[in-house]
Amino acid sequence: MTIANQIIRPTLLVDETRARANIMEMTRRARSSGVTFRPHFKTHQSIEVGRWYRDAGVEAITVSSASMAEYFATDGWKDILIASPINVRELARLEQLAESIRLHVTVDSVTAVCHLAKGRFAKLAVWIEIDSGDHRTGIDTSDRPALERVARQVMEANGLELAGLIAHDGHTYGVETPSDVAPVYEKTVRCLADLRSWIEPIVGQKLRLSVGDTPSGKLVEDHSGVDEIRPGNFVFGDLCQLSIGSCREDEIAVLLAAPVVSKSGIRREIVLHGGAVHLSKDWLLAPNGRAIFGRIAPLTDTGWGPILPDCYVSRVSQELSVIQASDALFESVEIGDLVGVLPIHSCLTVNAMRSMRTLDGRTISCMLGEHA
Amino acid sequence: MTIANQIIRPTLLVDETRARANIMEMTRRARSSGVTFRPHFKTHQSIEVGRWYRDAGVEAITVSSASMAEYFATDGWKDILIASPINVRELARLEQLAESIRLHVTVDSVTAVCHLAKGRFAKLAVWIEIDSGDHRTGIDTSDRPALERVARQVMEANGLELAGLIAHDGHTYGVETPSDVAPVYEKTVRCLADLRSWIEPIVGQKLRLSVGDTPSGKLVEDHSGVDEIRPGNFVFGDLCQLSIGSCREDEIAVLLAAPVVSKSGIRREIVLHGGAVHLSKDWLLAPNGRAIFGRIAPLTDTGWGPILPDCYVSRVSQELSVIQASDALFESVEIGDLVGVLPIHSCLTVNAMRSMRTLDGRTISCMLGEHA
Repeated sequence: MTIANQIIRPTLLVDETRARANIMEMTRRARSSGVTFRPHFKTHQSIEVGRWYRDAGVEAITVSSASMAEYFATDGWKDILIASPINVRELARLEQLAESIRLHVTVDSVTAVCHLAKGRFAKLAVWIEIDSGDHRTGIDTSDRPALERVARQVMEANGLELAGLIAHDGHTYGVETPSDVAPVYEKTVRCLADLRSWIEPIVGQKLRLSVGDTPSGKLVEDHSGVDEIRPGNFVFGDLCQLSIGSCREDEIAVLLAAPVVSKSGIRREIVLHGGAVHLSKDWLLAPNGRAIFGRIAPLTDTGWGPILPDCYVSRVSQELSVIQASDALFESVEIGDLVGVLPIHSCLTVNAMRSMRTLDGRTISCMLGEHA
Repeated sequence: MTIANQIIRPTLLVDETRARANIMEMTRRARSSGVTFRPHFKTHQSIEVGRWYRDAGVEAITVSSASMAEYFATDGWKDILIASPINVRELARLEQLAESIRLHVTVDSVTAVCHLAKGRFAKLAVWIEIDSGDHRTGIDTSDRPALERVARQVMEANGLELAGLIAHDGHTYGVETPSDVAPVYEKTVRCLADLRSWIEPIVGQKLRLSVGDTPSGKLVEDHSGVDEIRPGNFVFGDLCQLSIGSCREDEIAVLLAAPVVSKSGIRREIVLHGGAVHLSKDWLLAPNGRAIFGRIAPLTDTGWGPILPDCYVSRVSQELSVIQASDALFESVEIGDLVGVLPIHSCLTVNAMRSMRTLDGRTISCMLGEHA
């Protein structure tokens, strides 16, 4: 029984061996740097994949919402950081979560701390986010007065504990070459260390530093300048990481298997059942200036083969994708066959599919709570 | 109790009054043209919203997958067309569906028909797709030999019934001005009518014509040249339709209410909990050349107000959106407040959220089958 024989509709395959190897490698890096490995679980949103991390010795995790924290708490995770600035409308849920686990939240404003201060927390770990250059959230690195105000507000509140400074180097995704990642990372670490040296005497306590993104997790070997790292995407990898140079093709651990429903000989196009609601609509600019929504890898009896040259997903609509095919692919594929598509952004593809199938045929479910 | 008081996390609001009015208006148009109204249900994927159509007298519907057909069949829909070229790997599901409902499928190849011919169908309605200019799926309008081959193959198969010719004018979404839509539509109808006149004597039976897309559904008054229309998106509308000129702002019936989690005074940006996993990553090019991922409408006690000028979602990541805000919006909004975001593409936003909340506080669920 081959993989293809068991699949009738768009199905996200996960190569468990690759994913576990990716987890082991990142665990090794964190250990050799002497830092806590707190992986971001938004990539997989799955209790079962979470257990692969537990098998590797991971105890602390990162999530992006209270819902996701609740979901993983049900499987026994006891040390969870919500790494986006906290949604203060969910105070009651946070109070309840903090009763059963060691809960960490992120803030970048006095206002958010004032909301948290109204909660009944025995011990809520609060991290202050610093904008290290991604310019999305966080206190500007030059705004020390703001950092001091937020830190003091945390110190004054009952039940809140100032844990440290946190940053997300989202701008590592915009580098030109892999060698540009380490300088971005090092600048962030220097900046966080400077701010820590400055604020620790003011607040009169030790603070921790937390950083995290897959490009720097993969391309920087020594993380000893911080206390914890939080990469997430590395577990599955994708074409985005491949284009940055932060994963190898044989590390990519998820692929959408999608049935061929149409072919156009005139345009050399193959159309798949499998579109934006399966892959997401994320895209990359290829070297030739075209937007690509995925690349093609042929299914084998036991997994999938190397990326096919001169083939890519050129267009996605709600349920369909159009592949611009090489002559070789076009001639070899018939309506009813399955074609493998490597996603641009595995986090969004997993989120869209909400379940995966291992290469030995098991179904792995993801959380539905936020959306159900 | 206002709407805002009941919302703690990203929530898709649906204005039932507007949606029902949109349904009534399209029903009226179809009736006045004397054509069957077979709305596409992929936009809402919801049994409850389906019932709003039933209240308007709709009996025949369109879906984009066998899963979606099964879902709506459970609520008593008896006449369902799967409007994308059929996924022949799901033959067993199609056989089962066709036992309980009047099932219609779409094909554009002899290969697909050969697969269907192996099924045990008492009466499966088969539509042949014509590529009227969208260049995604369908037989090229100039390829009459291909049309004849497919039609003959359907006629020869046991249990298959040739229903008609079907087209999807996806290219109406690319027009420059609203007045460009009608010529696209009229060209499609002329072309389908020509092909029908030519093929009917060959197959020796009458054929029906089916077309459908929201821009032509909204911007063309007379549909009497075809037998049925299949628009879907019109029920909710969105910024894409607004930009085409195929919906008015006061017809848009869904809006994401999302909590403010961060503000940047330097950049005049407001950050929401509510990102690609809530809105999707669809975008539009604004007149100023910037990509926008949503526009802002303030929540009111009973719904939402007009679009705010000089404000838009400039960036989305997995769970967060960044609003480029006017001074007025920036000053009036605090962390913890809710902001309303009108989606670019309501179908993908509904698909991402998988549940909606009416303005009077009821929860409306969408199908989870394909993804659960």
